[in-house]
Amino acid sequence: MKDNNCFYCEDGQKRHELMYEVCKMDLCTLYVLRNQKYRGRMVLKFNDHVPDISALTEDQNRRFFGELRKVAAALMSLYHPDKINYAIYGDLVPHLHVHIVPKYKGGPEWGGPFVDGGEAKILDDAQLEEIAKTMRAELKKGEAK
Amino acid sequence: MKDNNCFYCEDGQKRHELMYEVCKMDLCTLYVLRNQKYRGRMVLKFNDHVPDISALTEDQNRRFFGELRKVAAALMSLYHPDKINYAIYGDLVPHLHVHIVPKYKGGPEWGGPFVDGGEAKILDDAQLEEIAKTMRAELKKGEAK
Repeated sequence: MKDNNCFYCEDGQKRHELMYEVCKMDLCTLYVLRNQKYRGRMVLKFNDHVPDISALTEDQNRRFFGELRKVAAALMSLYHPDKINYAIYGDLVPHLHVHIVPKYKGGPEWGGPFVDGGEAKILDDAQLEEIAKTMRAELKKGEAK
Repeated sequence: MKDNNCFYCEDGQKRHELMYEVCKMDLCTLYVLRNQKYRGRMVLKFNDHVPDISALTEDQNRRFFGELRKVAAALMSLYHPDKINYAIYGDLVPHLHVHIVPKYKGGPEWGGPFVDGGEAKILDDAQLEEIAKTMRAELKKGEAK
């Protein structure tokens, strides 16, 4: 199930400009955002073009959020955030994806919703690959448990 | 597992001022927000005081998000929103709960994150009970499937 007008389905230049692929999971793909204003910020994309969780089967829902839980556990281990925020928005990009945003006391927007504006912290591919590598290893450790 | 400083655990005046109970589910409690600026806006609270999904067991995670999916399906059937936004924030209230916010083309914040400010639309108990009643019935229909 793909949608020709969806940049998550297209997985081309626009997606590439915003985020860097960490790994494919079972039903999802995990990306790290190029803008690491929130240290460890990622996006978990459901691979098929599904607009809402109500369109998932019970089994897909279990596996989708199971993958989200694994990502959360890996981020907690690696970054020790004080909280993780999760958001599914996508009014204009109705392809199921979760924003996963570690938050830190004293850091940006602590105590309020994360925002896309503000001072950006854009990393280069080598830095992003470093994050991706540690995430892949941490996710693998989780699987071994 | 309860936390004495948490208004979700306390379930007293503050919670009551913000939202109206729809029903208890298996692991969660569902509330409808008194402020219905976003028609159908609800909160799904995990009953135990757990700060993050990474602290859930695999089985709890499956059941928690299974309940969220049921609520989403009921909201879709009743309100036909153009999208539903979901957010787990809670930096300052670290008790697992999901904001469930139906969005409508041409309605408040379509195309952007929902916000707590702006013009409120506060309903009285009778109006909230009406919403709660239709939600309970819709959730029951979902169970029968």
